[in-house]
Amino acid sequence: MKPDNNYKVGDSAEITHVFTAREVDIFAELSGDKNPVHLDEAYASRTQFKGRIVHGMLVSSLFSTIFGTVFPGEGSIYLGQNLRFTAPVKLGAEVKARVTISAIRPDKPIATFETVCSVGDQVVVSGDAAILLPA
Amino acid sequence: MKPDNNYKVGDSAEITHVFTAREVDIFAELSGDKNPVHLDEAYASRTQFKGRIVHGMLVSSLFSTIFGTVFPGEGSIYLGQNLRFTAPVKLGAEVKARVTISAIRPDKPIATFETVCSVGDQVVVSGDAAILLPA
Repeated sequence: MKPDNNYKVGDSAEITHVFTAREVDIFAELSGDKNPVHLDEAYASRTQFKGRIVHGMLVSSLFSTIFGTVFPGEGSIYLGQNLRFTAPVKLGAEVKARVTISAIRPDKPIATFETVCSVGDQVVVSGDAAILLPA
Repeated sequence: MKPDNNYKVGDSAEITHVFTAREVDIFAELSGDKNPVHLDEAYASRTQFKGRIVHGMLVSSLFSTIFGTVFPGEGSIYLGQNLRFTAPVKLGAEVKARVTISAIRPDKPIATFETVCSVGDQVVVSGDAAILLPA
């Protein structure tokens, strides 16, 4: 299997999503992460966050969504994802997730992507991912 | 704010979970990651995985669940999570997620945790996390 020359450094894709209270509730049930900072507005309003925030792993799932369905899409294999949660995401905020190829291995069809989620000008999740590109 | 001396290197916690087809379906809807390797048994059975697999980010959400609800629990703030997806997780497999404190900063109440998910003796997700410990 050789690197697919259709991919090049700098190629990118993005999606946007607004997480609702209902989505956060569903993720809490699904993951079991019922930390009240995500679920209880009265509790969360007394924390430094001043209101309910979206689970960092739910926000970060937008990267998985891009990789699995948009770019590179079907056939991609997720090898790794590094995440830094740099700012909270409030319910109702529009999150833009963007992935950009930063390197492609010369010996294998494995690309490193810079991965960033932002709300307006504020980066909320940053990091990088490794993807085995589709054949 | 000073490091909480109740925490020490080597402290750990674990949870186990079996992901069902329904949970994977719900996560696909929630995240938008409808890659057929997660949803379509006929498709997935023709891939190297030989059947539907759980989204890596859904498996990894078990770490968030431990941090937010078990150890350190309420008041923890998730600063970062590095993930390597080392093997696929089939539907119905029992996943054990374990987090272990590997370091605590001397100057701030920030701990690094080794984070591992395994199915039997097979490591399926490995990495580490940074957590701001509860006051």
